[in-house]
Amino acid sequence: MGPLRIGIAGLGHVGCGLIELVQRQDRLRLPGRVEIAGVSARSQSRNRPVSTDGYTWFDDAATLAEDPNVDVFVELVGGSDGPAKFAVESALRAGKHVVTANKALIAKHGNMLAALAAEKQVDLLFEAAVAGGIPVVRVLRDSLAGTEVTRVSGILNGTCNFITSTMLDTGRSYEDVLEEAQKRGYAEADPTLDVSGMDAAHKAAILSAIAFSADLDFSKVSVRGIEDIGLLDLRLADRLGFRIKLIAEGVLKAEGVVCRVEPMALTAGHALARIDGSLNSVRVEGDPLGAVVLTGPGAGSGPTASAVMGDVAKLFRPAIRNAFGRADHHVAQPFIKGGEDEISPFFLRVRLTDKPGTLAALTEALAEEGVSVDKLLQDSADETGASPVAVVTHRCPRRQILSAIARIEALGVTVDAPRLIRIETAS
Amino acid sequence: MGPLRIGIAGLGHVGCGLIELVQRQDRLRLPGRVEIAGVSARSQSRNRPVSTDGYTWFDDAATLAEDPNVDVFVELVGGSDGPAKFAVESALRAGKHVVTANKALIAKHGNMLAALAAEKQVDLLFEAAVAGGIPVVRVLRDSLAGTEVTRVSGILNGTCNFITSTMLDTGRSYEDVLEEAQKRGYAEADPTLDVSGMDAAHKAAILSAIAFSADLDFSKVSVRGIEDIGLLDLRLADRLGFRIKLIAEGVLKAEGVVCRVEPMALTAGHALARIDGSLNSVRVEGDPLGAVVLTGPGAGSGPTASAVMGDVAKLFRPAIRNAFGRADHHVAQPFIKGGEDEISPFFLRVRLTDKPGTLAALTEALAEEGVSVDKLLQDSADETGASPVAVVTHRCPRRQILSAIARIEALGVTVDAPRLIRIETAS
Repeated sequence: MGPLRIGIAGLGHVGCGLIELVQRQDRLRLPGRVEIAGVSARSQSRNRPVSTDGYTWFDDAATLAEDPNVDVFVELVGGSDGPAKFAVESALRAGKHVVTANKALIAKHGNMLAALAAEKQVDLLFEAAVAGGIPVVRVLRDSLAGTEVTRVSGILNGTCNFITSTMLDTGRSYEDVLEEAQKRGYAEADPTLDVSGMDAAHKAAILSAIAFSADLDFSKVSVRGIEDIGLLDLRLADRLGFRIKLIAEGVLKAEGVVCRVEPMALTAGHALARIDGSLNSVRVEGDPLGAVVLTGPGAGSGPTASAVMGDVAKLFRPAIRNAFGRADHHVAQPFIKGGEDEISPFFLRVRLTDKPGTLAALTEALAEEGVSVDKLLQDSADETGASPVAVVTHRCPRRQILSAIARIEALGVTVDAPRLIRIETAS
Repeated sequence: MGPLRIGIAGLGHVGCGLIELVQRQDRLRLPGRVEIAGVSARSQSRNRPVSTDGYTWFDDAATLAEDPNVDVFVELVGGSDGPAKFAVESALRAGKHVVTANKALIAKHGNMLAALAAEKQVDLLFEAAVAGGIPVVRVLRDSLAGTEVTRVSGILNGTCNFITSTMLDTGRSYEDVLEEAQKRGYAEADPTLDVSGMDAAHKAAILSAIAFSADLDFSKVSVRGIEDIGLLDLRLADRLGFRIKLIAEGVLKAEGVVCRVEPMALTAGHALARIDGSLNSVRVEGDPLGAVVLTGPGAGSGPTASAVMGDVAKLFRPAIRNAFGRADHHVAQPFIKGGEDEISPFFLRVRLTDKPGTLAALTEALAEEGVSVDKLLQDSADETGASPVAVVTHRCPRRQILSAIARIEALGVTVDAPRLIRIETAS
C-alpha cells in the first residue's frame, strides 16, 4: 500500500497539531503511511509551533486542493463561504477525498458538497466539525446505522458550558467569566458565534441530518444562546434542583426533524446535567439501542487534530483491515503480566480481633513496611466482636502493602482475610 | 447495489433481536438491503418472539457458514470453542465476512481468526462482543486510529456493576442482590463468568489488543472478581469518599501492555464512579486526544442486535458512502420548525416590582392560562427592591406559558423580561 498524500490548507492550532501528528505517526495506528504533499496558509512567515520548512508551500488553498500529488485535501481554513468553500469544491471536482473540521461550511453547504462527493465517488469526512475529539459523526453515521435514532441531544459548545458552570460554581457574573474564557482561549475575541448558540446549532444540524437521514436545512433550526442567562437564573434553578445548560438537540417527530439550540433546565439525574467546564457530551437515543452517551474534549488543537487524523485513516484502500486494526508497520506490543512494583494509593479493609493492641499492631505493621497512612476509619465492633477498620494509604508500591498484610496476618490480629483494593483518583 | 445476504447462527435473544431488526430495516439507515439467506439453531421447534418460518433452516452452523447464498456469516452461538469456532473458521475459509458477538471466542482465538480473515481478504467484525450497544470497538479501531492511546479502562460487566451498586444503595447482601440480578435476567443461572471477572477480562483483552496494536495473549491478563467484596467494604469505602467498582483496564507501559480486571476504589470525581446499575462505560485516554468516555447499555438483546446490525452495515460495497450516510432508499426526513404546541414542564424566572399584589398577579396570570405550578420560590428583594421568583410548572403546551408571560408583562409587574427555560427530566 503506497503512502496517502495529504494537502493541508490552514495552519492554525489544528493544522499545526495535524502536522505534529504526521511527524510522529509511527506511534499511531494508521493503516499505512501519510505524507504531506503540500501546505497552504495566509502567511508563510508566521511563527508556528511546528516547522513547515520541508513541505511544498502553496499560496492558494484551491491550487493545493487540485494538485496532482494530493490524494486527500484537508481543509482547516474555516468560514462557511469564501476560500474554504471554493477549495473544498475544487478538491471534490478534481476527484480528491476531503477531510474538514469546518462546521459552518457543512451546516450551510453540506447537501451540495455531499452530492458533489457522491458524483465523484470520493469521501467527504467531517468528524472534527462536531464535538472535537468525540467521534460522534462516525458513530452516528456508521456504528449506529443499525438502530433507529429517535433523538440526539448534547452539550456541543464548550465555551457556553464553561461560562454557565463557572458562573454557578463561583458566583461570578457572565461578563467576568466570559473574559476568563477569552483569556484561557476557550472563547474567541468576538464570542458571538459561541454565546449566541450559532456554533452549537451548526453542529446540531449536522448530527440531525445524519441521525435521521434528513435533508439539512439550517434555516429551520431554532437558535437561542446564553446571553440572557444571568447568575440569578442559574442559582434559582440550582435551588430548585435543576442545572441550566445550553442544549442542542434534534428530535424525530411525525412531520420531520425538529432541531434546536436553547438553554434548558436539566434535573440532577439527567445524563448531561453533570457535564461541567469546557467538556462536550452527546446523548443518542434509539430503538432498540436505548441511550448511549459520549463525553470528551469538544475543542482544542490536540483532540481536533486527532479527529482529522482519524478521518484520514479511513481513506486508505483497500478498505478491509485486520480485525484488530493491526498493520505490519505498527510497533507490536506484547501483553505482559502486571507486577507488584506498581505504585498507587490503596484501600485496605481488615476486621480486627476483639483484643487490646490490635489496632496498634496494624498501624505498626504498615509503618514497618514503609506504608504511610492517609486516612483510617475504625468502626464499632460488630456482633461477633470484630472491629472493622478501613485504611487509605498514601502512594506506595503494591509489594510494600502486600508485605504489610503478610505481617498483619502472621500476627493473628484479624478475623478474616484483609481486602486490598487499588485506589484510582479522579480522572 | 444488490442485497447483502446474511446467515444467522444462534437464535437466542440477540439472534431474534437481529431478525426483528432485519424485518423493520426500512426504518434503519443501512447502505442497502439485508436479506436473511438462512438461519441455524439447536432447536427448530422452540418458541421464539419472532417467526422464522420464511427462512431457510440449517441444522448445522458450519453448513450455513459455507452456503453459497451467504455473503456474511453472523455467529451468535457463543462459547470460545466447539461449534462457534468451527463455524466461524468455516465461514472465513469460504471467503465470507464474519460478524460475531462472541467475546470468549475473540479473546481466545482472535489472533488466529484475524490472520485467517486477512489471508482471505474478508472482514471479521465483533462490535457486539464488547460493551453491548456502545460502539467502542470501531471507535478505538478506526475513529481513534489517529491518536496514541495510553490507557483504556471501563466498567465492562453490567452484572457486577448492578450487584455492587445495588448492595451499597440498598444495604442488601451480595447473595441477595445476585439473586435479584438472576431474576431480572442480568445474571446467568451460573454467574461465575460474570462475578469472577472473566467476562470483563475477555472484553478488556480485546480492547487492549486494538488500542495498543498488541498481540492478544489472554494468559497474561490478571483477573479478580467481586466475590470477596462485602457490604462492609462498600460502606467503609463510601464513608471515606470512594466507590468500589469492578474495573477492567489496559495500560501501555514501556515493556508492553498490562491488562487486568479487579475491584478498584474510585474517588467521587472519577469518570466511572457514577456509573451505576447495569450500565457499561469505557474511558479511552490518549495523546493528543485527552480522554473520551462512552456510556450505555452493555448487554440486552436490543443494544446487542443494534451493534451486530452496525457491523453488517459496514459490509456493503463500495465502501464510499454519502457524507451524511444517506442512501436513495432511505425515507428522507425534512427539517421542520419547532412549534409552540410542544408539551413540557417549564422553569420561569421573573423579577417582580416592589409593590403589593405582584406575586398574586403572577400566579393568577398562570392560572388563567391553565398553567399549573409545581414549585415556586420567591427570594428576598434585591438591592433594587425587585423580588426574584422562580416557578417550576407542571407539563403544559409552550403556547400556554407564553400567553401567561404576555399577560404578566402587560400587567407591568416585572422589572425585566421574564426568562422561560424548558425543563428536561432525567434520562
